[in-house]
Amino acid sequence: MSYTPPWAWITEWLSHKEAHLHGVYKVYFFGRTKYQDVAVVETGSFGKALFLDGFVQSTEFDEFVYHEALVHPAMITHPNPEKVAIIGGGEGATLRESLKHQGVKEVTMVDIDRELIDICKRYLPEWNKGAFNDPRTKLVFSDGRRFLKENREKYDVIILDLTDPIKGGPSQYLYTKEFYTIVKERLDDEGVMVTQATNPRYYLEIYATIHNTVKSVFKLARPYRTFIPSFLTDWGFVIGSKGRDPLEVSKEEIERRTGDMESRFYDHEAHFNMFWIPKYMKAIMSRIKRVSTDSSPVGLEKWGL
Amino acid sequence: MSYTPPWAWITEWLSHKEAHLHGVYKVYFFGRTKYQDVAVVETGSFGKALFLDGFVQSTEFDEFVYHEALVHPAMITHPNPEKVAIIGGGEGATLRESLKHQGVKEVTMVDIDRELIDICKRYLPEWNKGAFNDPRTKLVFSDGRRFLKENREKYDVIILDLTDPIKGGPSQYLYTKEFYTIVKERLDDEGVMVTQATNPRYYLEIYATIHNTVKSVFKLARPYRTFIPSFLTDWGFVIGSKGRDPLEVSKEEIERRTGDMESRFYDHEAHFNMFWIPKYMKAIMSRIKRVSTDSSPVGLEKWGL
Amino acid sequence: MSYTPPWAWITEWLSHKEAHLHGVYKVYFFGRTKYQDVAVVETGSFGKALFLDGFVQSTEFDEFVYHEALVHPAMITHPNPEKVAIIGGGEGATLRESLKHQGVKEVTMVDIDRELIDICKRYLPEWNKGAFNDPRTKLVFSDGRRFLKENREKYDVIILDLTDPIKGGPSQYLYTKEFYTIVKERLDDEGVMVTQATNPRYYLEIYATIHNTVKSVFKLARPYRTFIPSFLTDWGFVIGSKGRDPLEVSKEEIERRTGDMESRFYDHEAHFNMFWIPKYMKAIMSRIKRVSTDSSPVGLEKWGL
Amino acid sequence: MSYTPPWAWITEWLSHKEAHLHGVYKVYFFGRTKYQDVAVVETGSFGKALFLDGFVQSTEFDEFVYHEALVHPAMITHPNPEKVAIIGGGEGATLRESLKHQGVKEVTMVDIDRELIDICKRYLPEWNKGAFNDPRTKLVFSDGRRFLKENREKYDVIILDLTDPIKGGPSQYLYTKEFYTIVKERLDDEGVMVTQATNPRYYLEIYATIHNTVKSVFKLARPYRTFIPSFLTDWGFVIGSKGRDPLEVSKEEIERRTGDMESRFYDHEAHFNMFWIPKYMKAIMSRIKRVSTDSSPVGLEKWGL
Repeated sequence: MSYTPPWAWITEWLSHKEAHLHGVYKVYFFGRTKYQDVAVVETGSFGKALFLDGFVQSTEFDEFVYHEALVHPAMITHPNPEKVAIIGGGEGATLRESLKHQGVKEVTMVDIDRELIDICKRYLPEWNKGAFNDPRTKLVFSDGRRFLKENREKYDVIILDLTDPIKGGPSQYLYTKEFYTIVKERLDDEGVMVTQATNPRYYLEIYATIHNTVKSVFKLARPYRTFIPSFLTDWGFVIGSKGRDPLEVSKEEIERRTGDMESRFYDHEAHFNMFWIPKYMKAIMSRIKRVSTDSSPVGLEKWGL
Repeated sequence: MSYTPPWAWITEWLSHKEAHLHGVYKVYFFGRTKYQDVAVVETGSFGKALFLDGFVQSTEFDEFVYHEALVHPAMITHPNPEKVAIIGGGEGATLRESLKHQGVKEVTMVDIDRELIDICKRYLPEWNKGAFNDPRTKLVFSDGRRFLKENREKYDVIILDLTDPIKGGPSQYLYTKEFYTIVKERLDDEGVMVTQATNPRYYLEIYATIHNTVKSVFKLARPYRTFIPSFLTDWGFVIGSKGRDPLEVSKEEIERRTGDMESRFYDHEAHFNMFWIPKYMKAIMSRIKRVSTDSSPVGLEKWGL
Repeated sequence: MSYTPPWAWITEWLSHKEAHLHGVYKVYFFGRTKYQDVAVVETGSFGKALFLDGFVQSTEFDEFVYHEALVHPAMITHPNPEKVAIIGGGEGATLRESLKHQGVKEVTMVDIDRELIDICKRYLPEWNKGAFNDPRTKLVFSDGRRFLKENREKYDVIILDLTDPIKGGPSQYLYTKEFYTIVKERLDDEGVMVTQATNPRYYLEIYATIHNTVKSVFKLARPYRTFIPSFLTDWGFVIGSKGRDPLEVSKEEIERRTGDMESRFYDHEAHFNMFWIPKYMKAIMSRIKRVSTDSSPVGLEKWGL
Repeated sequence: MSYTPPWAWITEWLSHKEAHLHGVYKVYFFGRTKYQDVAVVETGSFGKALFLDGFVQSTEFDEFVYHEALVHPAMITHPNPEKVAIIGGGEGATLRESLKHQGVKEVTMVDIDRELIDICKRYLPEWNKGAFNDPRTKLVFSDGRRFLKENREKYDVIILDLTDPIKGGPSQYLYTKEFYTIVKERLDDEGVMVTQATNPRYYLEIYATIHNTVKSVFKLARPYRTFIPSFLTDWGFVIGSKGRDPLEVSKEEIERRTGDMESRFYDHEAHFNMFWIPKYMKAIMSRIKRVSTDSSPVGLEKWGL
């Protein structure tokens, strides 16, 4: 058989000297909100996909890997999460995963970009699977940092589902010591936070710095990672805990608490595996001492990398 | 600062609808041997890199991950490997890793493409690090399958460092039941083989089929995988063993046997981690029953994927 | 200043070994009619542009060059065109140019793709400039060849504003001797036809064949060409005339008849210049004897070129 | 039949928002001289081609169009050129064309980049066709402006075969009033100069400015242009003459003087045609009054265009 490549493409500029090309077969949405460029398109390899500012956020093919990897380790580390806050998470899939845990009474999702959420509701129903209509869901359109600072609520788990800390971008101050201090104040005594933490392939120094920064605030911090096909790389996360260590949760507890939960990626094997950091990464990370602060925040510059 | 992208690029066509672009900054070699297109270039993200037929084989930045992941699990699974055979492995890095194991007396490397090896010797000295000159090395230019079939030697470990089983390509019959039967015959009683097994992101069915095929010949077969940055994906491998199960080797034995060995990726944590197959992959793999045979060999078609 | 390239692109595959990339800044329309893929986008270099099946048809920046070059030489060659037919011409700009000629009483435009015309009316108003609402305009949705065959009307000028004669495509039989014979029958005694004739850079043989074919039917045939920036090449046209030779029209007549006509490209200098065919093209064209017929139509294959 | 695109490409960045991709099938040379990046490669569409700093300079397929268009109008405008100087012209093809004129006794070619000329001699013999060995050839490695300034020779024709006046690049001061004044001083009383003048598609303002600048120095200046396939555009040139007007040369003189000369592009029709500037270009050019001077030289910036 004979195949010709498509004529419409999205070029993810991994830097100015490397790129990933997605053939585009349909355009569901292509435009700009107040905050960012948004595209929802049918890609050749990953099905329907959401791009923000030209970077893939999640795809039909593997969004479950990212969202299960982000949500469940933190939820399981807390012995009994009832109140959850999500900062970011426009697609509604982080919300969907959080609501799967029995015992959850309320999930507050705070996203700054109302237009984006309308786009996601309309074009990505497979992502939220009705989560926006769950009676336990509270949706707030606000700046996440301000929301946590001004709010007096306490949460069991806070999930930071953010865009990368791009230099000068809207998320840069959501990766600093000062911000994590606010997060910590909003957590109960056994509270757990988790943040996406960029990818260790390109941004190992930033990943290590985010880990250091969480560690500088929380009793316990654990970096973890897993491979996300559409991101083309292992992706990084960091847990901060006021209570348990995620490595001390038992296999049996994970099995018990996830037994009735629909999942395609997360199970007790995934849980422990994700905390493995390869030797060569650990070697580099151990030499990085930087902590990100409001006066000197980590910032990445994709194009010039 | 201001950056402009380069003007020379290698496009890895992951299929006709997805591509990976490497900026090219130097060309060390660009030509064709009797068997394949060969390019050795300086890439923007991965340093010096070898491409065969337009696909990256290994890069300065991370070749150690691939080669350590290919070689050490099999070597460690055998309690005391003295004689090793490598089929393929043109860069000489699989050879280099094999020779690191104490007790190894002889490594026979069989590659069909003499010109490629000359190119690798000349342009990729950082890969072989002198391994071609090791007195324990025997280099044979021959078809790997014929070599094993006609040869009466026995080996402790046989490492299959091959190109992918592309439809109609030179490696397609090095992934069949008949071939693995020959491999098994050339192994001693505790002998272990390992093969690269394509990547489970794109070729999960082929990966599963290779696993099934090894399993149909060997007492024990174990698929494993790990993330290789320049391949943009978790990469797959399969071990077949006439003796031990790689999962039954103790952490202590691995530490003892690798204590003096220089490695950047492989250690006992990596060893056990690599055998973890994510739940969604296992679910699909368990439904695939195919075995590859000479009359119906697995074959992949990158372009049309 | 610092610039980064866009992340959305249209790749015009000039063949499988050459391409033209247009950065995309807005998407006005992206979809498929019954007949073809249609995209209306804002490009980086040419402003708003219409693409059919991945090939640029006309752009805000230079559509006037193409449309004036297509329409006016034929209109001027006829001493007094009153009735005009256009086959194709979805954007409405060929219509717009035809209606500029004083004395024109009726322009019948026949396009097979009603959806395309709706898209052009909605998203490309700068192209038609109200021409669809001109009382002299008759719009017919039909197969162009069937329309001319079954219709008994006579025209002064027939303008063939078609897609290229792609092998197996919808326009292949609109470039044959049999079709031009139908066209000739529908022209009055001084009638003139003109067809776009692909580009002589890539398709010199096809361009020459179209010329030969028109010549095999009409008393007089003249190839001409001009540079269209967004097409990246000189573009080819062929006039067939039952009456005058376009080279015999006087400079004064052109000035008189275009004096009040708004034009940005066409004037008497352009008129005569366009009929110049460079020596190396003439040399090749003179060796090509082929005539396109229904049983053996010319057909181009862009991808495999 | 089935075709797959190549995996090696040269991307000509026409700007940061438009590009032209050449598939690469062989690499003859890829490296850097003291002055510029040089690549000689086999392209998919244009055969062997020379790229400087990532931009195509000339190709096997159509270098004759560029070189004949650059050389012959100026040579013919002079009634009897005997001494010619070429500034730039590394490939040796401008030299080749100059030497075709009967009566030429000496051609001095001045190029700053000796390594480039060695590369062209070795890899592009089809371009120079032995011209470097012609006894009338004098080859000088020097800065062209300094050479003309310090030298006391007089020439009949001076041909400026330069790279574009890129901001901060080596050719920027070879397009100024002061430079053209030096050129004029080195020409005899009927002397003629010609310069390549960038392309009017992208750089119409620069093209107009170069024309204005030549006009500010010479009695007579004429812009001309012609389509060069591999440049994807009409290309611009400007003649400055101390003697005849190129438009006053007779058709018969051109035929007589080129009768025995091998040419594929240039003839009397090409001569007069090239001086036609389309109406829309003339309209814009007439509004541009700028003259390029040493203190304020024209400069183009391809990337940011």
